Amino acid sequence: MMADGLAGGLAACDAAEGSLVPAAVAESLVAVGRRMDARGWVPATAGNLSARLAGDRLAITRSGVHKGFLAAADIMAVDFAGQSLSPGLKPSAETLLHCQIYELWPEVGSVLHGHSVPATALTLALPEAEAIHLAGYEVLKAWSTITTHDASVALPIIDNDQDMLRLARRLAPLLESGQAPIGYVLRGHGIYVWGADVNAALYRLEALEFLLATEIERRKLA
Amino acid sequence: MMADGLAGGLAACDAAEGSLVPAAVAESLVAVGRRMDARGWVPATAGNLSARLAGDRLAITRSGVHKGFLAAADIMAVDFAGQSLSPGLKPSAETLLHCQIYELWPEVGSVLHGHSVPATALTLALPEAEAIHLAGYEVLKAWSTITTHDASVALPIIDNDQDMLRLARRLAPLLESGQAPIGYVLRGHGIYVWGADVNAALYRLEALEFLLATEIERRKLA
Amino acid sequence: MMADGLAGGLAACDAAEGSLVPAAVAESLVAVGRRMDARGWVPATAGNLSARLAGDRLAITRSGVHKGFLAAADIMAVDFAGQSLSPGLKPSAETLLHCQIYELWPEVGSVLHGHSVPATALTLALPEAEAIHLAGYEVLKAWSTITTHDASVALPIIDNDQDMLRLARRLAPLLESGQAPIGYVLRGHGIYVWGADVNAALYRLEALEFLLATEIERRKLA
Amino acid sequence: MMADGLAGGLAACDAAEGSLVPAAVAESLVAVGRRMDARGWVPATAGNLSARLAGDRLAITRSGVHKGFLAAADIMAVDFAGQSLSPGLKPSAETLLHCQIYELWPEVGSVLHGHSVPATALTLALPEAEAIHLAGYEVLKAWSTITTHDASVALPIIDNDQDMLRLARRLAPLLESGQAPIGYVLRGHGIYVWGADVNAALYRLEALEFLLATEIERRKLA
Repeated sequence: MMADGLAGGLAACDAAEGSLVPAAVAESLVAVGRRMDARGWVPATAGNLSARLAGDRLAITRSGVHKGFLAAADIMAVDFAGQSLSPGLKPSAETLLHCQIYELWPEVGSVLHGHSVPATALTLALPEAEAIHLAGYEVLKAWSTITTHDASVALPIIDNDQDMLRLARRLAPLLESGQAPIGYVLRGHGIYVWGADVNAALYRLEALEFLLATEIERRKLA
Repeated sequence: MMADGLAGGLAACDAAEGSLVPAAVAESLVAVGRRMDARGWVPATAGNLSARLAGDRLAITRSGVHKGFLAAADIMAVDFAGQSLSPGLKPSAETLLHCQIYELWPEVGSVLHGHSVPATALTLALPEAEAIHLAGYEVLKAWSTITTHDASVALPIIDNDQDMLRLARRLAPLLESGQAPIGYVLRGHGIYVWGADVNAALYRLEALEFLLATEIERRKLA
Repeated sequence: MMADGLAGGLAACDAAEGSLVPAAVAESLVAVGRRMDARGWVPATAGNLSARLAGDRLAITRSGVHKGFLAAADIMAVDFAGQSLSPGLKPSAETLLHCQIYELWPEVGSVLHGHSVPATALTLALPEAEAIHLAGYEVLKAWSTITTHDASVALPIIDNDQDMLRLARRLAPLLESGQAPIGYVLRGHGIYVWGADVNAALYRLEALEFLLATEIERRKLA
Repeated sequence: MMADGLAGGLAACDAAEGSLVPAAVAESLVAVGRRMDARGWVPATAGNLSARLAGDRLAITRSGVHKGFLAAADIMAVDFAGQSLSPGLKPSAETLLHCQIYELWPEVGSVLHGHSVPATALTLALPEAEAIHLAGYEVLKAWSTITTHDASVALPIIDNDQDMLRLARRLAPLLESGQAPIGYVLRGHGIYVWGADVNAALYRLEALEFLLATEIERRKLA
């Protein structure tokens, strides 16, 4: 683990022979997976971790692997239509949700998706809610667009769907209109969050999980 | 820990001299025990971990050891009647519950049993319930027979019993009729879950523990 | 960490030069302290860990040290009156509570005391209760005197006191009359538990902490 | 990690060339950051860790870094007005709150600030409260001014503010009048705590986090 966080720079790194994914990118996603596993955010084969590559491509965890036990070879390349560029490797169906975010915002360098107990419990306990409203939290400043705790920020909740194209279409107006949300939660499923690079996305994931864990405790005390 | 999870293949592995348990099988169960311990699922000497061996035998943790501190020598062989094949080593009484599962389903390669706070608290808090109904959870897809979160799955609860033959008889109709359950919970005791191999069983255990931890939080928020 | 748990045998081990505490005893208590710290049971300098030595003496953690960062030199010898036998080292005031247990039961080889959130919260939330009644828990079988989950076991709660002699006198009738309790809890303070050796005491501590953590969840769900 | 805790002595340690921060000071803060991260108390880039240096200066974590991934180079020197003495490094805005404590009490050698779920949830759940009253807790003895559990201690809650000078002015009467508090909590933000050195401050942080985690559970059970 390097001094400036989990990920090294992408710049001067060549991909392993035969792979389209630079070794440093793969290593940073492997490290993020281990950290998410240590926090309990990727049970079984849950979650998907990705990073932007040059040329409208992304590196993403392949389908069906445990994110706490990733090897570099489990990180594959796909194009922005979610098609595999790594012979023999199959991407997760949810790859399309990653692609949607990269296409929409050129400044996004990494997208992380995990399943946590607080995100899952809170969205199922609020079956009608379209957002969780987060107010008074200093940690909201993890998003550079938020400069004070004295704000009420809506974290959108979207009903889960096994049809990724339909889900992406439902997400589109939410992502594209006005200010970008700080992330979103699929009900009963988990969090999607993004940032300029793998570290930035990880820090926002940590901030969001902290907010949801706190929100659950606050509601139980109320 | 290998790239493809906790367990290596069983194929080309010979047992340590004098043992009926191939070293790779023992190692994979030792690794699972450490992981379950790190999650707090095997307090004291709780839990039993097993894997199918060739010839209607299984490898299982011996009686009375802490699953977080296992050595390969703590993994013994028994036949499908639960009788020790490892001279001097005594199997746990609950070995019979493992045998029952292996006999019933030839495709099962590993059975895991742990005690967790959520499984124990939830079954004791619902003294009359015969099942926990899990609905709306993406993580249910950890079972290949479940292809959507939009399902309600019953996790059976069985009253605990110190008489393993009687317990196995009570379990039989539940296991044998219709579709196999995703696992089961002994009230005030813990989870039994199984899979094609040690990794598959571990992933389902993680999924089930995640579901129960989430279910507890959902109920407290309701 | 050895295959058979945290502690090695005491038999053939010599004490470090100038110390009355055999190295293996010190190491086993250091290891238990690290494990309790990892579980969050010894915040700040909380807790006391001890093991019986030959000749009516015990090895115990010295006063004021963090149990997660123990060195062998932090384990001192005291006599059964709680007087230091290690020049320059001061035992904790609570050493007397350890001595009381060793004097009472010759078969006890180790006493462990930690502070956990569940033990502290539950005893403060039940200000009038003289015991926590634990029923239906398989984990109760961690005590060899309990052979079935189908039992109701009383874990005594004693009001905390800064006067250790007075506290020991109040504990005496509880410990000496009839069957020994499975341990006890000082209200707002923590658990005392014991066993034949350091491993046995640790396993019972784990069992007791599991029971209290589960009991808290069960009560919140009720 | 050294036997006497996380931090070594400051005495004979020279700063790394070009740095005003002795290496041992930087190392002790790096170690505290890792420990706080393992406990979940510094999500994203939350928290600030500092230690007193000679000559009215302090060593403090620079702005915007993750406290779980600190390198020695992330520890910078500032004067008591919060001005950077480390060329090119920017201190956190909250540095002023650290300076206030060092200026007020010459015996304070370290100040720690973290964000935890219990501190954040409890202060937001009590929007009108000016303090959390802690009574009956043995762990209160982590403060040498408190010699018994039989005490009720007020942990002040201050409304959060992005204007640090204004916040420091609001804190002043609280800190300066009568007996020093055991620490304080910024509402929706986190804990500030201090001690004679880095270890002493860490132990008090652990005690305070333990108290708040327990207080939350006690209130839910009530």
